[in-house]
Amino acid sequence: MDTEYSFSPISPPARNLAPQAWARWDAKTKPQLSLGRLEQLAVDIVCMRRELVPRLGRPLLLVFGADHGIVDEHVTGSPRQITWQQCKNIAKGGGAIGLMCKHNGIDMQVVDVGVAYDFEPADSIISCKVDYGTQNFAKTAAMERQQCLAAMATGQRLVGEAADAERAVIAFGEMGIGNTTSAAALMAAITGCDVELCTGIGSGMNEQQLEHKRSVIKDALMLHGRPADPIETLRTYGGYEIAAITGGLLEAASRRMVILMDGFITSVALLVARAIDPAVMEYVVFCHESRETGHRLLLAYLGASPLLRLSLCLGEGTGAALGWLLVRQAMDLYCDMTSFNDAQVTDSVTLLKQRGVDLHAR
Amino acid sequence: MDTEYSFSPISPPARNLAPQAWARWDAKTKPQLSLGRLEQLAVDIVCMRRELVPRLGRPLLLVFGADHGIVDEHVTGSPRQITWQQCKNIAKGGGAIGLMCKHNGIDMQVVDVGVAYDFEPADSIISCKVDYGTQNFAKTAAMERQQCLAAMATGQRLVGEAADAERAVIAFGEMGIGNTTSAAALMAAITGCDVELCTGIGSGMNEQQLEHKRSVIKDALMLHGRPADPIETLRTYGGYEIAAITGGLLEAASRRMVILMDGFITSVALLVARAIDPAVMEYVVFCHESRETGHRLLLAYLGASPLLRLSLCLGEGTGAALGWLLVRQAMDLYCDMTSFNDAQVTDSVTLLKQRGVDLHAR
Repeated sequence: MDTEYSFSPISPPARNLAPQAWARWDAKTKPQLSLGRLEQLAVDIVCMRRELVPRLGRPLLLVFGADHGIVDEHVTGSPRQITWQQCKNIAKGGGAIGLMCKHNGIDMQVVDVGVAYDFEPADSIISCKVDYGTQNFAKTAAMERQQCLAAMATGQRLVGEAADAERAVIAFGEMGIGNTTSAAALMAAITGCDVELCTGIGSGMNEQQLEHKRSVIKDALMLHGRPADPIETLRTYGGYEIAAITGGLLEAASRRMVILMDGFITSVALLVARAIDPAVMEYVVFCHESRETGHRLLLAYLGASPLLRLSLCLGEGTGAALGWLLVRQAMDLYCDMTSFNDAQVTDSVTLLKQRGVDLHAR
Repeated sequence: MDTEYSFSPISPPARNLAPQAWARWDAKTKPQLSLGRLEQLAVDIVCMRRELVPRLGRPLLLVFGADHGIVDEHVTGSPRQITWQQCKNIAKGGGAIGLMCKHNGIDMQVVDVGVAYDFEPADSIISCKVDYGTQNFAKTAAMERQQCLAAMATGQRLVGEAADAERAVIAFGEMGIGNTTSAAALMAAITGCDVELCTGIGSGMNEQQLEHKRSVIKDALMLHGRPADPIETLRTYGGYEIAAITGGLLEAASRRMVILMDGFITSVALLVARAIDPAVMEYVVFCHESRETGHRLLLAYLGASPLLRLSLCLGEGTGAALGWLLVRQAMDLYCDMTSFNDAQVTDSVTLLKQRGVDLHAR
């Protein structure tokens, strides 16, 4: 661990609350376990929050923007300026994520940690710029170690401020042309999985371009190897937005926040965070499986079964924003749905339990 | 077709609108097809509604309640009075579906088509009672043909009124102790699939009770056989709520309404409706896959891939109410998300198309 940077300890969720939470579900006017995964989700969140009836309030989505030196290797068909253009668009409430946040009761902040552009104050983008994009990791490490730690500290600080303001739910999104290349390299370096399995078409390319993207990543892995230290790996192949999310994830878990996990890029940040402290996993709700090659394998590697499989591959936090609809619904039902007692409905769950039918035992 | 009952013709969706709808998606500030299934969903709905920018408004959920004579055979562990108790609870906004409708912007009506109970006007339940529950189909056909047709006509009429009031979206739910037995028998009779594969534990039972439930269904199939006429099959094994939903589905499709499909019971009603007119399928959005045995197989039989797989098995329309969150989100994005042009973001989709990368062609 670096002397100049420290992570807060992560304590496990209060699993001792689970039986009481299950009893609350079983008193609701419905067959036992009939709300399926929504029930487990609510029980998990009770344990994370250490409250039998947690009121989550509005989530905060932090969208980190950054540019990537690796785009010099022609690994994407999208022009680099889309990073800053789309950061501005999102901050104004545009783009898919802008609309989804507005409609789904999510507060959002766009944070510049490494965009190759000078935003104006009127753009409503939080400035935490470490540099104007990373170096090209085909040639040299993407970041200096101090730069990487600075980006991580930014994520940590912003999440800490959200926790101080009593936010219970946090999500992370990203905007950075070239970042599927960076994420695929990180995934391959940390997991040891084949580059082919980690690397997809990002925002769109043909087979030949995909082949080129893969060989750029393979060459970079030959050049830099697979460092044992996760922060060293992160600074070698990562992006500023990925580093910021990594720091944010660790802080969120240490503050017992419910983390709404988005797609490929953010899951790779989680992979790094997990290598630093595996306990981070206990605070994560896996919202969706992206269509981007690599995400499905990464979820399996992490032992995760996401709530949604709708073939989205947009990033920005859109999968997390969709998942929030289900998390919110689960918590609304758990907290506020009528019980057999208050609705004067015959308590069939207790009746069945008395006859030896308890689905929890199955 | 019965002379005393007629179904309105169902015309196919206006598929000619699809290219314009896809062009609208491709102009949005996002990589091509990156909203995955939400994009296809919106295009399908455009074609159903015959409008390039359809505004769907609030869905109506019709929850049909009915009792089942087959409960005399001890096929369920839940007492029969739960049907009327839960109808009252739901009509008051209780139960899972009551809360979900309130939170998800769905209007709901509970309709008595065959409950073995006399509701009071204060219960806010629409009275369309055909009888006080079906006959026990282990002994005799569940309904007289006229009774079955009367229940179907009720569904047809209520949906027709909703369409007249310019509703664009309809969903069906059900409340009826014993109705998984009825639905499993209908599924086995229509599809020819093994009773084991069609029959699950409903609201909860042990292995021995499940074995008994299956043998009751098998015996009934031996007794009545598999009529070629779908309405004959429906009146033999069905319930009043299943018949009402069948009639409602056919009317909804003929009125070009978007149908939010719930779980096992409603999907069996769709199976009957499809046997009457296969064109009904074109107006259905399959919202979820239930945990109830039979539903997964039924969805595969129908060639359907549902939006959600969350192991719910509650009925009442809860899967449809969850699915509505995704349908509404898809339509909001399709209708209102910013375009490259109005957000002043470089049009990367057109750039890629010019370079020969068009993901629609994949």
